[in-house]
Amino acid sequence: MKKFFYPSSVAILGISPRHGNIGRNILANLENIGFPGDIHLVSPSGGEYHGRTIHPNVADLPEIPELAVVLTPAATVPGLVRDCGQKGIKRLIIETGGFSELDESRRSLEREIVEASQQYGMRFIGPNCIGVICTDARLAVPFPLLDRAIKPGGLSILAQSGGIGLTYLHACSENKVGIAKFCSMGNKLNVNERDLLAYLIEDPQTEAILLYLESIVDGRALYDLIRSTSKPVVVHKSNIAETSHAIASSHTAALANDDAVVDAALKQAGAIRAHTVHTCLQILKGLSLPKPKGRRLGIISRSGGHAVAAADAAFRHNMALPSFPEEFLDHIQEYTRASVIRLQNPLDLGDLFHFEMYLEIVKNALAMEDLDAVLMLHGYRGREVEVSRQFVAKVGELCKQANKPLALALLVDPEEMIVAAELSSIPLFPFAEEGAMALSAAQRAGGIPKSERLSCAEGFDQQRVQRLLGAAGPDGWLDLPEALHLLNAARIPVAPFVTALDPDDAVQAADSLGYPVVLKAVGGADLLHKTEAGGVVLNLGDAEAVRQAAQDMMDQLKPQRLLVMQHIKGGQELILGIKRDPGFGPVVLLGLGGVTAEALGDVSLRLAPVDDAEAGQMMDELKGSALLKGFRGQPPVKRSALLEAIMRLAILADRMPSIVELDINPLLAGSGGVMAVDARVRVAGDALKSGH
Amino acid sequence: MKKFFYPSSVAILGISPRHGNIGRNILANLENIGFPGDIHLVSPSGGEYHGRTIHPNVADLPEIPELAVVLTPAATVPGLVRDCGQKGIKRLIIETGGFSELDESRRSLEREIVEASQQYGMRFIGPNCIGVICTDARLAVPFPLLDRAIKPGGLSILAQSGGIGLTYLHACSENKVGIAKFCSMGNKLNVNERDLLAYLIEDPQTEAILLYLESIVDGRALYDLIRSTSKPVVVHKSNIAETSHAIASSHTAALANDDAVVDAALKQAGAIRAHTVHTCLQILKGLSLPKPKGRRLGIISRSGGHAVAAADAAFRHNMALPSFPEEFLDHIQEYTRASVIRLQNPLDLGDLFHFEMYLEIVKNALAMEDLDAVLMLHGYRGREVEVSRQFVAKVGELCKQANKPLALALLVDPEEMIVAAELSSIPLFPFAEEGAMALSAAQRAGGIPKSERLSCAEGFDQQRVQRLLGAAGPDGWLDLPEALHLLNAARIPVAPFVTALDPDDAVQAADSLGYPVVLKAVGGADLLHKTEAGGVVLNLGDAEAVRQAAQDMMDQLKPQRLLVMQHIKGGQELILGIKRDPGFGPVVLLGLGGVTAEALGDVSLRLAPVDDAEAGQMMDELKGSALLKGFRGQPPVKRSALLEAIMRLAILADRMPSIVELDINPLLAGSGGVMAVDARVRVAGDALKSGH
Repeated sequence: MKKFFYPSSVAILGISPRHGNIGRNILANLENIGFPGDIHLVSPSGGEYHGRTIHPNVADLPEIPELAVVLTPAATVPGLVRDCGQKGIKRLIIETGGFSELDESRRSLEREIVEASQQYGMRFIGPNCIGVICTDARLAVPFPLLDRAIKPGGLSILAQSGGIGLTYLHACSENKVGIAKFCSMGNKLNVNERDLLAYLIEDPQTEAILLYLESIVDGRALYDLIRSTSKPVVVHKSNIAETSHAIASSHTAALANDDAVVDAALKQAGAIRAHTVHTCLQILKGLSLPKPKGRRLGIISRSGGHAVAAADAAFRHNMALPSFPEEFLDHIQEYTRASVIRLQNPLDLGDLFHFEMYLEIVKNALAMEDLDAVLMLHGYRGREVEVSRQFVAKVGELCKQANKPLALALLVDPEEMIVAAELSSIPLFPFAEEGAMALSAAQRAGGIPKSERLSCAEGFDQQRVQRLLGAAGPDGWLDLPEALHLLNAARIPVAPFVTALDPDDAVQAADSLGYPVVLKAVGGADLLHKTEAGGVVLNLGDAEAVRQAAQDMMDQLKPQRLLVMQHIKGGQELILGIKRDPGFGPVVLLGLGGVTAEALGDVSLRLAPVDDAEAGQMMDELKGSALLKGFRGQPPVKRSALLEAIMRLAILADRMPSIVELDINPLLAGSGGVMAVDARVRVAGDALKSGH
Repeated sequence: MKKFFYPSSVAILGISPRHGNIGRNILANLENIGFPGDIHLVSPSGGEYHGRTIHPNVADLPEIPELAVVLTPAATVPGLVRDCGQKGIKRLIIETGGFSELDESRRSLEREIVEASQQYGMRFIGPNCIGVICTDARLAVPFPLLDRAIKPGGLSILAQSGGIGLTYLHACSENKVGIAKFCSMGNKLNVNERDLLAYLIEDPQTEAILLYLESIVDGRALYDLIRSTSKPVVVHKSNIAETSHAIASSHTAALANDDAVVDAALKQAGAIRAHTVHTCLQILKGLSLPKPKGRRLGIISRSGGHAVAAADAAFRHNMALPSFPEEFLDHIQEYTRASVIRLQNPLDLGDLFHFEMYLEIVKNALAMEDLDAVLMLHGYRGREVEVSRQFVAKVGELCKQANKPLALALLVDPEEMIVAAELSSIPLFPFAEEGAMALSAAQRAGGIPKSERLSCAEGFDQQRVQRLLGAAGPDGWLDLPEALHLLNAARIPVAPFVTALDPDDAVQAADSLGYPVVLKAVGGADLLHKTEAGGVVLNLGDAEAVRQAAQDMMDQLKPQRLLVMQHIKGGQELILGIKRDPGFGPVVLLGLGGVTAEALGDVSLRLAPVDDAEAGQMMDELKGSALLKGFRGQPPVKRSALLEAIMRLAILADRMPSIVELDINPLLAGSGGVMAVDARVRVAGDALKSGH
């Protein structure tokens, strides 16, 4: 990947002196940014442009450029790719649009390009993209004219949309967020976001990464990459309106939709997800500041109202407002008439403004051990403009010296905002709320703690699991006894049960298990909704009751087998399940059980496998998690047992890709442990066919 | 109120030629806006300023000004108020700060001011406020210098914080949102937001109202006012972080917190609530456009990425994207190479830009009967700036001519945004998402439909209700039989029950009701948690079981009475309750019943009384509302019966202010109707003392 960003020479294919030729912008961008390498121009027109020779053919080039940028009509691209291959060029950026994004009939053109690139061993970015910028290499090959300087810095941007990518690029430069690398990826026929992300994770110039995505193809690989880095990754994933909802055949599938998986996976990988451009920009500003080490925020405001709004925003974004220490407040009092400001956090400075005092207050606040971040609001007009500008010009240095973030919100005219943004060395926020939100996001960003994973894999009986999965019917469903044995083999506790073939057998089984028992008919998929069909009888208290129920069931339902299970009473009903996402792979779902909870859709998702911290988060992020912690006098659920069951189910999900869906419903959880009492498992059709 | 905004003459108290005197800004503001009436200056200094005489005393003024603006040190204010009273001045705006907002000890100064105003029959706004602006009367008396023109228009702003008020005032002017009236209310010792809101509702210049509030005192009166108007009202209520949570003695109280009541009341009154300044500003821009008549949005974008983001935002804000008609698309195709743009909604125009074509597309989209609003994104740089400016300058007219809203988002540099904002006659949005959100809010704004209220008041037995409430114990709680009788008297269905004094009595009662029955111990507050104490026995199937249970209960709990009730089985458990909010008065709460739903806190609130539409909204906005509509093969709940029970409970809440809290838990709801099977009612202590 590196040569895409650090080529020693660049050829521009499609540049001509013709009026309106946009290839010329590529040259202008390269010249403006001061690209130090060789630049070659190619166009059938030939001739000269800007004192440079235009070569009619790629073959005519005096050297083999390390990078070729293509911006010619779509129909000409496959031929040019072949020309480049023959010349020995190894890297292309194809900016031309008008391929499959426009019309399915153009897919054959794309195939030609892919074939040519394979033939010559070339890598390419695009087509239908804007191209690449690398401030470090002074490389800029987008075709839109970049009419102002890109500020160098630590943020790299990967964008699936050129338009949104440029919006972020420009807005970052306007907001003091410096750029390391930029790439608009277009149709991703060859190089995709995973290739680029892997490169940026290793790139020493890249300190934080923004990914704008409209679709995610191999979600699992993306997840693994994001999870692997400690660099902050912000993901703006759009296109949720078109997310298709898979038709669901189990509770687990019905309870989870694709965007919820995206959400869970990004959270689990340690990424920050943004849903709008405005929000994302604020987060990028926050990331460009020193990282807050915790959630303790000091708010200093010139307006009482804005201080209240800032405190609200801090509250909403889970930041704490500790009291300022006495010495700090005493010191401020020396500067001021004590009778005009209220000394608390948020600190409302009222009308008082002395340039020096403001700098000192901010400096002292940044020095406080009890604070992880400072949010300052300053508004000015008229006579205060000059001194305020001095303040704005100097205050950013304090933030850097203290290595602690200062979110500075300025309440000024748009014209003054532009002046202030020039003067300031740190980003400016429009209002306090945006500053508080950005600090909160920056605090969360930066990768998940790399703790030792509690694996819970010991005792997993892979051979037995394998064998049981092979027992699935032609429709892929396991019978209940095999489903429960499967859980046992994965070391998930199951209520004691025995299978039986007739009423006598059932009574014997019940005697051995102890009363009361539950009797269930076993007979494949047609009995899946066995409760409605009378295939489940609860709370059978003695042998006679079992015999009668078994006989009735045999007579009415003609099941293949009967299952007799201890009737476990009490405990909180949970749903624990597996679903398989086309992009992200195995997903584990935890939800509250029972009709009410299902109707409320209170579930938590994580990609499998999960460690104990993640299992704990699943439990804690349920809206009804209070029910698991001793609600209304109930004893709390045994946390360690539930976490272990989640981890063990996740191992099953991870190791057995043939499991398409699995529901434990209910899993009964109590103070003594957890126990599965019903389960459904479906195995993939192709796994069945292959004799798995 | 009117003379506060339309005085024929104004006196400024506290203006002096001394350097740094901020009273001089008041005069400057009045002069700059072109106030046509007389202006008088008062200060002990005497002398002259700006060619005007400064009168040393109020008594010296040559006429009685219709409005006096006070900006002198806090300690001098009571005396000046008296001076004004003696002179015969009837209206004051006291801008001075440093009263109770700063220090409780200053409350005596406030009392003096109130007393003086009462003595002379004066009304005043403030203290601690910024004052009043009326663009229609060319009046502007804030003490901060308004260094640029306020755009006249239809929005009036009432702000509890001067700082936030000014932020909104300036931002509106910068964003083409014209202002009718502005008032910063300060400490609201005399004139408050309700007085001002009532005036603005009648004011012909005011078309929409923004209320910024940090506290709400008489919430019910505010609710009634907002509900009474068809003008759009936007409420930015902050200070949620400090909302105190009342200690709860019932489920209903525990399930609702104050901010949830604010939320419910504003929604019920037809107001739009904003939580941040940024969001609120976008909504105000949306309100300044013609009102969308429905939710059908057409999106036209120059960037595919931004089109996707806009579609996401439309989806999130519940706007629909109908297909564009064929003729419209055909017409666009005439202008363009068909092969570069995708013809759908959102319409991505790609790189194509002809000034005339853009105007025509927007004009045609605005003319479409199938669309209620249009969202257009345009980004430009470099060579396109000139034609784009022409487009921006003209497109607003199309919106006005069509009387249909156009949300225009411009993706340009901040500098260009300022130029474009000058040229445009409609507000500009920073990104598509803000435009979609604002259109959605504007569509919802504008008051609730004034339908005939279904009252459900007939049959309400007020005398009997009164008498039953009088039976509350010294702690305020009703015994269960009286609580159930109370519901009966309010015409809310209750499961059949009979009280009994001994086991024989109980058996006779059970015989008359029919088996199975439930037996409950009745004995006042110490038995409130009767289930835990063994005071409830369910599902008693015959006389012997009843006799035995009754005897056990008598022996163990020694209750005063026993209650025998038909054991109703099946149906969805609901909670229906009353809580009394200190500001908003009686509130009705509907929630799903059972421990799970309570832990999930799925409740809906409305101020009492409620009509059938509001009762229906309560039912529908429950997250688990699917459970009431036939979930998982259950028959749906009888909607009309549930709505009637909600309305009847709301009448009880509204007519009986002595009820502090009431819980029907559970109310069983099924396909045949609803039925209360348990209830708790607490009556206010003072109502008890007065022999109520």
